[in-house]
Amino acid sequence: MEDQSILIKNTTIIGSDIKKSSLLIENDKIANIDENLNSKDADVVINGEGKILIPGLVNTHTHLPMTLLRGYADYYPLDTWLNEYIFPVEGKLEGEHAYAGALLACVEMIKSGTTTFNDMYFFMDQVARAVDESGMRGLISHGMLDFGDEEKRKSEYKESLRIIEKCHNTADGRIKVALGPHAPYTCSTDLLKWVRKKADHLKVRIHIHVSETEFEVQQVQESYGARPFEYLDKIGFLKEDVLAAHAVWLSDTEMDIIKDRDVKLSHNPVSNMKLASGTSPLVKMMKKGLNLSLGTDGAASNNNLDMLEEMKIAALQQKVVNLDPTVLKADEVFKMATMGGANALGLEQEIGTIEVGKKADIVLVDMKAPHLTPFRHPVSHLVYSARGADVDTVICNGQILMQEKELLVLDEKEVLSQAEESAKDLLAR
Amino acid sequence: MEDQSILIKNTTIIGSDIKKSSLLIENDKIANIDENLNSKDADVVINGEGKILIPGLVNTHTHLPMTLLRGYADYYPLDTWLNEYIFPVEGKLEGEHAYAGALLACVEMIKSGTTTFNDMYFFMDQVARAVDESGMRGLISHGMLDFGDEEKRKSEYKESLRIIEKCHNTADGRIKVALGPHAPYTCSTDLLKWVRKKADHLKVRIHIHVSETEFEVQQVQESYGARPFEYLDKIGFLKEDVLAAHAVWLSDTEMDIIKDRDVKLSHNPVSNMKLASGTSPLVKMMKKGLNLSLGTDGAASNNNLDMLEEMKIAALQQKVVNLDPTVLKADEVFKMATMGGANALGLEQEIGTIEVGKKADIVLVDMKAPHLTPFRHPVSHLVYSARGADVDTVICNGQILMQEKELLVLDEKEVLSQAEESAKDLLAR
Repeated sequence: MEDQSILIKNTTIIGSDIKKSSLLIENDKIANIDENLNSKDADVVINGEGKILIPGLVNTHTHLPMTLLRGYADYYPLDTWLNEYIFPVEGKLEGEHAYAGALLACVEMIKSGTTTFNDMYFFMDQVARAVDESGMRGLISHGMLDFGDEEKRKSEYKESLRIIEKCHNTADGRIKVALGPHAPYTCSTDLLKWVRKKADHLKVRIHIHVSETEFEVQQVQESYGARPFEYLDKIGFLKEDVLAAHAVWLSDTEMDIIKDRDVKLSHNPVSNMKLASGTSPLVKMMKKGLNLSLGTDGAASNNNLDMLEEMKIAALQQKVVNLDPTVLKADEVFKMATMGGANALGLEQEIGTIEVGKKADIVLVDMKAPHLTPFRHPVSHLVYSARGADVDTVICNGQILMQEKELLVLDEKEVLSQAEESAKDLLAR
Repeated sequence: MEDQSILIKNTTIIGSDIKKSSLLIENDKIANIDENLNSKDADVVINGEGKILIPGLVNTHTHLPMTLLRGYADYYPLDTWLNEYIFPVEGKLEGEHAYAGALLACVEMIKSGTTTFNDMYFFMDQVARAVDESGMRGLISHGMLDFGDEEKRKSEYKESLRIIEKCHNTADGRIKVALGPHAPYTCSTDLLKWVRKKADHLKVRIHIHVSETEFEVQQVQESYGARPFEYLDKIGFLKEDVLAAHAVWLSDTEMDIIKDRDVKLSHNPVSNMKLASGTSPLVKMMKKGLNLSLGTDGAASNNNLDMLEEMKIAALQQKVVNLDPTVLKADEVFKMATMGGANALGLEQEIGTIEVGKKADIVLVDMKAPHLTPFRHPVSHLVYSARGADVDTVICNGQILMQEKELLVLDEKEVLSQAEESAKDLLAR
């Protein structure tokens, strides 16, 4: 990337406190926050008046290429949905589909204020290519499943190592690779143990689905005589580098294990509601001090990647299931979607807050809209009133990806048209 | 209004079936639907390519001027929220605030695809003025409360009759007036009986809150020895012209009463979740064949008026509480937000569907967006993927209120700035 400085003037900065100020970006970092910063100091000046400045949102569980399956097969529970609809189509998926779907996902995420995501899918070098072109930051992993089959297991090892070798720490460090065992009920104990060993050895993180449905918890109990997190702990799998997505069906003992092992969680309320998987005991998890973040899951079970919507629905759901309007306040859910996400991906030193010295992953939200008027507590408005479409300007790693709602990095029309064609091709196979 | 014809060409029409066609509007009505309609036949031609055409959305429970209290007093249960925060501010509210807040609400509703709403508040002639200027269609009612006080009751009668006299059937018939007793726990039996008598006599409809919280049900049980709908039925209040908002806490007997009396219901999931009021047994209500519609409630407990968001959250909530992804399908919740709403307001002959002869209340939604790609079942995309900001063009009563996202009827900047000032003035009192 080229050296440049960007000054965002007179904006409302949502940092450790909320204040009217200006912010200077130099290269890929936040260099200064000061109300007296001068336009002469910067190559590019952005007027932040009437806007709020927040950290780029962090989506900690998604499957980018599944945008191609958006609206495909609504109305099935997770097991039918996966086995009868999603897996058969995914069996026909090739690299070109993964690339087209990932590009579409990147456009959608940028336009709704996400700068960093955590992805698990197939053909991840194609996904990495899309991410590189988009300017976003991503932790990607090849989704491994063996259903106990040794041949399949070996080929999953090979592909995982290939992706790490090829993509880890590429794109100016924006792309990192994790190991992605799909779930305890789709992966053998051998596979999970191999993942643990390789993660330690290669110092890469782990991304896994755990306890999304009650059915899956029963399956694990039948197979291993323990609940999923108990089983994973028993085989030595759980450490601070593990991000477990969903975590809907948890016992108290499992919450204590998660806390003890410093496992990170990704809460995915919209997908869990749409597939009727269940409701995470989030308030209890917060009380126990677990590391919580927020994710949309793939577009096929959401059906979008809008983190603003995800924040609102997360907050609403917890209020009503606890019959307590004071739980999961706007500030708390906003923290899950920013610093909680950074922490969940091991990026807490680099992103997640607006602080001098951190990476310049920054989003401006336009507050001059009828549904955001009158201007009050900006985080309340962001969570309860705003939508992804209010995002005005997006900067990742010091590069402007979108300015005043115009995408600068990718040709949006072309990406949409390619995705449309690619989806047709995939479903016609 | 002036005579004019509008042709919407080559669009995807969501009517009794879904088809690619063109639609002709003459004056205030849908005059023809035919793929061979010619541009020469119309004064105005709109290209509908890449868009879907739906009936204008119907928001069956809201309080327009409460947009001024958006984001004011989050995090309180309904009784504290009303008694300690909302009612004290509303005591200082004057006509100018109601007007500024209602204008803001109209801009917000138009921009998110709502053409008809059902409102209850104060200074309703000021609200009517805003509605008239906005070009929207509304059923409005003065919210009556007496808490058993006779003086207050008499002044509520007087104000209700004044609003009916002044505003009913004005603005080319777009504005109608209903009677608006607030709720069984805030209105005396005398007041409710008077409302029933006057509604019969004047042939106006009734808009009331019923059983929003469990606490309120207990209060009514203590006062009258019966649950709210049982009590209302006993005093002869319930007929087909009554719209009851919320209806969260219902017994089976009450559902049967609602069915027998053909009472209409407005389901308000976002507000009920945010205030932690509870979860309506909607699936059971659907099975009983109750008349269901959808409303956002006021912006102070939502915190927006986006009916697309309301549809998605309604569907998601019912799926997860029933642990069944097949309930409340996109088509069903879309029907609640259109024909269900028309039916709830007694406007089923005029609006709610795309049919020749009905009023031209029409919304075009732009489907060329990343979060709506690839194009699949348009109603699924509308409910699960779209947001208010995707609304492109809005026509009400044959008049174009917004075209290609540009508001034609009101000066948006001016409305926002007035609302901002008015909210400051109100809270400074």
